[in-house]
Amino acid sequence: MKAIMVGFGQVGRSLRTLLQGRAKELGVEVEIEAVVTRRGIMIGDGEEFRKTRDGTAMDALNLIGPDLVIDVSSANYQTGEPSLSLYIEALRRGVHVVTSNKAPLALKFWEIMDTSRRHGGKLGFQATVMSGVPSVNLIRVMPGLKITRIRGILNGTTNYILSKMYQGLSYEEALKEAQELGYAESNPEHDVNGFDAAAKLVILANYGLGSRANINSVHFKGIKELSQERIIALKRQGKKVKLVAEAYGNSLTVEPREIGPEDPLYNIDGVTNALHISSDVQEITVIGPGAGPLNAAFGVFSDIVLMSKGLY
Amino acid sequence: MKAIMVGFGQVGRSLRTLLQGRAKELGVEVEIEAVVTRRGIMIGDGEEFRKTRDGTAMDALNLIGPDLVIDVSSANYQTGEPSLSLYIEALRRGVHVVTSNKAPLALKFWEIMDTSRRHGGKLGFQATVMSGVPSVNLIRVMPGLKITRIRGILNGTTNYILSKMYQGLSYEEALKEAQELGYAESNPEHDVNGFDAAAKLVILANYGLGSRANINSVHFKGIKELSQERIIALKRQGKKVKLVAEAYGNSLTVEPREIGPEDPLYNIDGVTNALHISSDVQEITVIGPGAGPLNAAFGVFSDIVLMSKGLY
Repeated sequence: MKAIMVGFGQVGRSLRTLLQGRAKELGVEVEIEAVVTRRGIMIGDGEEFRKTRDGTAMDALNLIGPDLVIDVSSANYQTGEPSLSLYIEALRRGVHVVTSNKAPLALKFWEIMDTSRRHGGKLGFQATVMSGVPSVNLIRVMPGLKITRIRGILNGTTNYILSKMYQGLSYEEALKEAQELGYAESNPEHDVNGFDAAAKLVILANYGLGSRANINSVHFKGIKELSQERIIALKRQGKKVKLVAEAYGNSLTVEPREIGPEDPLYNIDGVTNALHISSDVQEITVIGPGAGPLNAAFGVFSDIVLMSKGLY
Repeated sequence: MKAIMVGFGQVGRSLRTLLQGRAKELGVEVEIEAVVTRRGIMIGDGEEFRKTRDGTAMDALNLIGPDLVIDVSSANYQTGEPSLSLYIEALRRGVHVVTSNKAPLALKFWEIMDTSRRHGGKLGFQATVMSGVPSVNLIRVMPGLKITRIRGILNGTTNYILSKMYQGLSYEEALKEAQELGYAESNPEHDVNGFDAAAKLVILANYGLGSRANINSVHFKGIKELSQERIIALKRQGKKVKLVAEAYGNSLTVEPREIGPEDPLYNIDGVTNALHISSDVQEITVIGPGAGPLNAAFGVFSDIVLMSKGLY
């Protein structure tokens, strides 16, 4: 498969390694024919980005005519661009798209999905939720399941902060520690205000529940107003506060919830994520690391391999 | 797809319902053209088994020439027959096999798998481990993952008994309760001696770790020798006893283990099953109901749909 890759940060670099090593072991050949960043286009592949020419991802799509577009660029929640237009155009041409970028799907899920279904370009987006831990692809291997509720801890940064506050740190101390460990960005706004979890919830709700939702459909509230005193008082009652993302019927919410030990999310601590799916047949929970460059790269990688084998 | 179905118990009946209802919603057409039980062959399909003629599953394979063999018959751990020969012959002819029957795979995993790979008949066996909760198929959607350890609670009956003993019941009382609730069979030997979990472990180890194992490779020990006193004494130390199935390197074991709250299996109580997978990229846990006719039927159903869409 001839691919172009948009974005060349840590996820992209980890993905290159996976594609050069274990893709071949699996009998899957993916050649990266161009890499696109904000700086321009690099024709060919390489360990470091070296601009060959000016141009956008759309220019690279036209220039290379790839079988596959890989998007590991960072999210633009204002418009979803330039990724959104790229996906639509690629899918229309029957070119497959695999992405770890949540923004286009959190904004225009059905526009992208319907384009894929109509024109035959396939769409892989496992890595947008819980990185390499099957979430989207867990739902994918349970076809026909009537999912009634999706509930989870979908943001590792806030869960880490809440776990540390439970141990006695203040919000500021916990955030600082998370930043030092690389679990939180220097501007953690999208994590701590619930936005990141909301974007992931939109993707899961659309895909799993058939919602017609976008990021504006979610009532989200973050963890900044939580006092350490309240968390410690709840601890004495045997409870924890978790930033719970929930899709149920038409309601999509992300908010701090007080939960007890009977809740499958109670024991999910630190940067770990968890997803609880209720359905007409079974209730299942999947738990694992929700972030990390290699983890996200593995999510993208698994989509590429499964797609090349015919799933989707 | 033209199918023959071997076995017509509760799993088979639930599967019929799924195939008649939601398969069509998914655009998958499966026609059951014959049902085979120990009593003989029923040509066609029906709510009740009515023998049309004498014959075996192999006779039905020859008679119908199906695209798909569905095996929901009960396990014969002595020889794996008649299912084992049926799979080999079907796969050789390029006929797909989807099964909830553990025995053939626990005895001759690689003989079956290699036949599938060589001749193009595909093999679905999600339902052999944890019924409809993705276990085999969870591994399937993480291609290229280097799994280093598989560890789980794979038998609901024993986990139910141990959970009840933890609450204060004796082994006999807990077993009786499990039998009354339909969680344990009248002859619970294969559950309580660890054999059932061992068979599932063999399947996961072969598929996930690339082991060359069969049921004789497992060192297994059940829960019958556990005293309630010991379980209660451990409870005071904050520990639980769980029947843990573990594949690590060349070692496959099923045995009661004392585990603490830091263990992802600690909170798995009642008939619930859990699977913990360690790998070079991520540690993940999946939790859900491991048994039940509808659950097993859903596992078979999901394999049929995914196979018809091109996965495997």
